[in-house]
Amino acid sequence: MRHARIFMSLSVLGGTMTELVHSAGLFAKSERIDSWRVRAVKPVSYEVRVCDDAFDLQSTALLDVGGRSADGRLRRFLVIDQNVDELHGERIRKYFDHHGVDYHAHLVRVDETVKDFDTATGIAQAIDAFGIDRRREPIIVIGGGVLMDIVGLVANLYRRGTPVLRVPTTLIGLVDAGVGVKTGVNFNGHKNRLGTYFETSLTLLDRSFLSTVERRHISNGLAEILKMALIKDVRLFDLLEEHGSRLLDIRFQGDTAAEQRVAAEVVQRAVHGMLEELQPNLWETELERVVDYGHTFSPTIEMHALPALLHGEAVCVDMALTTVLAWRRDLVDEEQRDRILEVMRILELPRWHDSLEPGLLAAALEDTVRHRDGKQRLPLPVGIGDATFVNDVTAEELAVAVADLRRLSSPDAVAGLRPVAAA
Amino acid sequence: MRHARIFMSLSVLGGTMTELVHSAGLFAKSERIDSWRVRAVKPVSYEVRVCDDAFDLQSTALLDVGGRSADGRLRRFLVIDQNVDELHGERIRKYFDHHGVDYHAHLVRVDETVKDFDTATGIAQAIDAFGIDRRREPIIVIGGGVLMDIVGLVANLYRRGTPVLRVPTTLIGLVDAGVGVKTGVNFNGHKNRLGTYFETSLTLLDRSFLSTVERRHISNGLAEILKMALIKDVRLFDLLEEHGSRLLDIRFQGDTAAEQRVAAEVVQRAVHGMLEELQPNLWETELERVVDYGHTFSPTIEMHALPALLHGEAVCVDMALTTVLAWRRDLVDEEQRDRILEVMRILELPRWHDSLEPGLLAAALEDTVRHRDGKQRLPLPVGIGDATFVNDVTAEELAVAVADLRRLSSPDAVAGLRPVAAA
Ligand SMILES: NC(=O)c1ccc[n+]([C@@H]2O[C@H](COP(=O)([O-])OP(=O)(O)OC[C@H]3O[C@@H](n4cnc5c(N)ncnc54)[C@H](O)[C@@H]3O)[C@@H](O)[C@H]2O)c1
Ligand SMILES: NC(=O)c1ccc[n+]([C@@H]2O[C@H](COP(=O)([O-])OP(=O)(O)OC[C@H]3O[C@@H](n4cnc5c(N)ncnc54)[C@H](O)[C@@H]3O)[C@@H](O)[C@H]2O)c1
Ligand SMILES: [Zn+2]
Ligand SMILES: [Zn+2]
Repeated sequence: MRHARIFMSLSVLGGTMTELVHSAGLFAKSERIDSWRVRAVKPVSYEVRVCDDAFDLQSTALLDVGGRSADGRLRRFLVIDQNVDELHGERIRKYFDHHGVDYHAHLVRVDETVKDFDTATGIAQAIDAFGIDRRREPIIVIGGGVLMDIVGLVANLYRRGTPVLRVPTTLIGLVDAGVGVKTGVNFNGHKNRLGTYFETSLTLLDRSFLSTVERRHISNGLAEILKMALIKDVRLFDLLEEHGSRLLDIRFQGDTAAEQRVAAEVVQRAVHGMLEELQPNLWETELERVVDYGHTFSPTIEMHALPALLHGEAVCVDMALTTVLAWRRDLVDEEQRDRILEVMRILELPRWHDSLEPGLLAAALEDTVRHRDGKQRLPLPVGIGDATFVNDVTAEELAVAVADLRRLSSPDAVAGLRPVAAA
Repeated sequence: MRHARIFMSLSVLGGTMTELVHSAGLFAKSERIDSWRVRAVKPVSYEVRVCDDAFDLQSTALLDVGGRSADGRLRRFLVIDQNVDELHGERIRKYFDHHGVDYHAHLVRVDETVKDFDTATGIAQAIDAFGIDRRREPIIVIGGGVLMDIVGLVANLYRRGTPVLRVPTTLIGLVDAGVGVKTGVNFNGHKNRLGTYFETSLTLLDRSFLSTVERRHISNGLAEILKMALIKDVRLFDLLEEHGSRLLDIRFQGDTAAEQRVAAEVVQRAVHGMLEELQPNLWETELERVVDYGHTFSPTIEMHALPALLHGEAVCVDMALTTVLAWRRDLVDEEQRDRILEVMRILELPRWHDSLEPGLLAAALEDTVRHRDGKQRLPLPVGIGDATFVNDVTAEELAVAVADLRRLSSPDAVAGLRPVAAA
């Protein structure tokens, strides 16, 4: 069938450029149109902003997006992590009260096991009950990666798209989940199997929330920061090596200006590196993504071990395994390998998990290959601060890496889940 | 906070143009980045193609999109309306067998009441069991508007986007649901409350499926065609007035070349008009949409009356009401009003439903206003073939229109749901 492009329009309307091509001229009774091609581009724009206090009464940042409802009221639907509400709820409510907002705070008790569609529909039901205007009343989510991923999905689905604002309250939230456009829930035993790409108009990065985060969850976020360091930012690695332990102790707060500066720099380098990688590839058209480092085996490991391993912990186990694999391929030398494994220990992250056995790793790789369109596209570190992609990892090679890692990560490997701090 | 745009990149990668703007120069230790803005445009392109036989053994149209899996197999996951499978399954299976496709056909018993998230997750589970490659193994859906809306949503969600192809098998499917990018399921008693915009790579419009569609469902599709006629295509209205009854009898097939031509033209005009309206406004940035005509009160009426009223029937009741309302506003003259109501009768569509009472209409209008960002943006016909938007419809005006319509649509109004064919 030949498609004569004799009609073509290119127009700009409401910020959207579109084009409709069909195979015949303006329609007339005798003409036969065989085919239409619709082309359009969707512009997306979003902001990630660092701030000292997202709920500073002087700031209207969180209310500047969106508007008032038809009857003049300022109405907002909030979704808040229940732990966050217990620890920071007063400050949050004071802010909305101060600005005269008619709000409903929907609380969710969060961990990875509730990251499913039931939790999502519960939130959608609560939105229905509150009632929000489709374009002008953004949903505001205040919580960690799990809650942001779920609410991002709900916002995308609700009336086919309702604006959303985020205030991440965990370290993973600040440096990773709160920065990109991926939404999702776990499904049928698979990590993030159902989800979308949906941008959050504005994310406010407020480190002060980390003061109440459990030590283990700070480590968890440090795993994603270490990922960025390994694949593209040697200075970030140096910072983690030198200050990682202290950052854990002070939960990214810091008593001195110098400590504050280090905490801020680590967060900013991680966010910046992440956005540099995401920006040209927002919809993952390109499937070779360095930021997928540590995410080849970990989705399966994480779901298999659920709830024993946190997301970043599973990522760290994956990175430990693939660091050893990279060393066997001469991509990383022995000294670098040991520095990497040592930083993992310093960050109190596991380098081993008993689920590292051939069957599970083969299944994990197979699923990842499906996810990466038929190829492994497996990122591996090259030294510290650079990466490459390989497509030829074999089961035998994995078995060797597992044996290597078992040896290298002991004695804490024997303890299983969590590394024991050095004596 | 001032955003100095001193760094800006514009790059084209994998068909995606993106731009990252942040408020400081290339990152250095002492600098403080306050904010990043990520900009990107997502290109979308899809085709709607008329064909005589979507499962013509000589055609590879349905297999040309996507590719073979890593191991060289041609694998496809099909979702088929169970009624369609019973009536046309042999022809469909022969096609995939002929082309050596390793396929799984997932059957769904469909009506509006199963248009929910449970049906969607059932399909996602079956996809998981079959296993498909993320980018190269499009899901193929063969069915009516309900199934296409559900599967479009599943395809959007599955691994954050899996390509999908459609073969609509109902009239609504051919002229409306199969043409645009809206996906969705009903939720919490609301029509299409959860959904997305997701393009279908290719839709094949094959009228031959209509030969087995129930007469009432042909009427149902004619309602959406009548909508297009009323708001923008007077010739289409003339065609419906002259041939509508016959088109119903012959189910858009036709024994003669002349009949075939009319059937093809009615479908093509409806599709063309729809695409003209959708193309510059694919994501509904502009909320004043003439194609929303008949869809102001109908979502609530349809869900309220479920399963008594079909989608197009509810749309027709809405159009009858708003035609009368437009007449009272002198937008439509009495002769036009009566021609419109008469064509509805010819098409065997209801012009009245007992749910037309003030409380329900007020609730419907309120929900639509939320959906249209705080304004009614209510399309009304201007004569036949043109439309305008109003924002000031009152409860009193609606009450008058209801009373008018009750009178004008009798005696069949008394029969309730379905109009009685003229004696
Ligand atoms: N969308 C993305 O791009 C992306 C990126 C990385 C990770 N993720 C997802 O993020 C999830 C992990 O996120 P997470 O680690 O934030 O987990 P989480 O959201 O479960 O939070 C961890 C725990 O910390 C609690 N908490 C949150 N804020 C707190 C605070 N300020 N003080 C005290 N306790 C607090 C929570 O209640 C929870 O118990 C995973 O599901 C992962 O898949 C998504
Ligand atoms: N996405 C959109 O833009 C859009 C546009 C218009 C309508 N819709 C949606 O479409 C739905 C209505 O679609 P529909 O009218 O096709 O309903 P449907 O999908 O329920 O099909 C109607 C009936 O016809 C049967 N059927 C389908 N094909 C057949 C065939 N060839 N022969 C015999 N029987 C057949 C089905 O099994 C079903 O019982 C509504 O939910 C509506 O919201 C969506
Ligand atoms: Zn991660
Ligand atoms: Zn419709």
